[in-house]
Amino acid sequence: MNRQQLLQQIQTKRSFLCVGLDTDIKKIPGHLLNEEDPVFAFNKSIIEATARYSVAYKPNLAFYESLGTKGWESLEKTVSFIQKNYPELFLIADAKRGDIGNTSGLYARAFFENLDFDAVTVAPYMGEDSVKPFMAYPGKWIILLALTSNKGAADFQFQKNENGRELYETVLETSQNWGNADNMMYVVGATKAEKLKDIRNIIPGHFLLIPGVGAQGGSLKEVAENGMNGSCGILVNSSRNIIYASAERNFAERAGEAAREMQKEMDILLKSRGL
Amino acid sequence: MNRQQLLQQIQTKRSFLCVGLDTDIKKIPGHLLNEEDPVFAFNKSIIEATARYSVAYKPNLAFYESLGTKGWESLEKTVSFIQKNYPELFLIADAKRGDIGNTSGLYARAFFENLDFDAVTVAPYMGEDSVKPFMAYPGKWIILLALTSNKGAADFQFQKNENGRELYETVLETSQNWGNADNMMYVVGATKAEKLKDIRNIIPGHFLLIPGVGAQGGSLKEVAENGMNGSCGILVNSSRNIIYASAERNFAERAGEAAREMQKEMDILLKSRGL
Repeated sequence: MNRQQLLQQIQTKRSFLCVGLDTDIKKIPGHLLNEEDPVFAFNKSIIEATARYSVAYKPNLAFYESLGTKGWESLEKTVSFIQKNYPELFLIADAKRGDIGNTSGLYARAFFENLDFDAVTVAPYMGEDSVKPFMAYPGKWIILLALTSNKGAADFQFQKNENGRELYETVLETSQNWGNADNMMYVVGATKAEKLKDIRNIIPGHFLLIPGVGAQGGSLKEVAENGMNGSCGILVNSSRNIIYASAERNFAERAGEAAREMQKEMDILLKSRGL
Repeated sequence: MNRQQLLQQIQTKRSFLCVGLDTDIKKIPGHLLNEEDPVFAFNKSIIEATARYSVAYKPNLAFYESLGTKGWESLEKTVSFIQKNYPELFLIADAKRGDIGNTSGLYARAFFENLDFDAVTVAPYMGEDSVKPFMAYPGKWIILLALTSNKGAADFQFQKNENGRELYETVLETSQNWGNADNMMYVVGATKAEKLKDIRNIIPGHFLLIPGVGAQGGSLKEVAENGMNGSCGILVNSSRNIIYASAERNFAERAGEAAREMQKEMDILLKSRGL
């Protein structure tokens, strides 16, 4: 999916919501455990209830890998279901991969060829040749970790170099030579909203994928005010607050309501920017 | 597997060789493609031919994930085969994972509970809480990326901070508070052998996993001379030079020969240290 198509969808749905499909078999409603594939059954219901309010879905690979081959099957089914029924949605593999060149190329094959995701999250530690293989696919995106939402982000990402630049700033600056705003986005945690203005100065045009709103404590209003650019430029992820809005039989309905509430707030924030 | 058992195996086999099972279906001998599971058939033959010369095996997850559920099945079979027939071997999931705490916990479940690997490689960018969940398993190890063997390592790993310490040095220093030499190792590329002496000053006791010998250009002698400590302290990985020693029907025999040659050289290097 290209940038224009993503922007079009944001305009049409009046939303920049990404739903995180962090589907934990230990947390889904008990009645689904009778289904042949409980994880897929859960995802399908969640997607049907939230797709009109969302522009992107982001399965986190850890949740599927923790179930072995069965989990990988649930992931394949989820991706196929979205592509068949909601081809307009932007599909992110939250995998945080990164390896030497030939190996990153195989991860790219896994996520872009076999599963046909639109984007994959990538860790920057191993540098350019670990990231570039993901860019060999036209119309696909890499989403590079810059400033993550967790406490441990402080261990290395805030390390200042000799020129006083923090590591995440160096990551933003250096990686701009690897791609452009049409094939790269960055992960910036909502819990670091005060940094978003500085980040926008470094990368005014790129999309940001912003996790950490809700369960992790970030505020939607604050990230939108500091992180949006002239054409929206942000995707805000919510996982637990939406998919686990209820653990009862009405889980999908409640997930839909939670997504609709975020969409309404997003509509107002888009309008406030004249979008 | 604990440190003492690993050291015992190194002493018995006179080897610190780790064989990288980077099994690419496009590179394995053609006659194996008639097998029900060509990747597993290849791995099984390679393991049988090389196990007496090796102490560790390291499947790289990208190679298996690039084949979807079939690849994950081949991985499961490979791990089971080793555990059943060669329980003394140290088994490393080269996954380079790392995510926020609850998510890293799920990767740990995937590799330590479901697959029963002894160790998993982890990327440090997200800091302590992304690494710690892997340490909740007694007898299991994390192997943290410090200085990688690829060209892109220079992009961020050599960034000097305000105190003149390079990022990989900060990673080594900071992460020592997270675990100890009984549950942590570090990845240091053989192509950076000149740095190994400095690294040994920072972490005298920890095991190092050293990729990059052979195809990537590192020298076994050089890494051993600079990287070994009083109880060996290194695992040297070789992938392509061993598993693709031949693309013909004799591939396993040739892999065994390649492994035996490395083992012989390792025996001499161990003796030179009085081990």
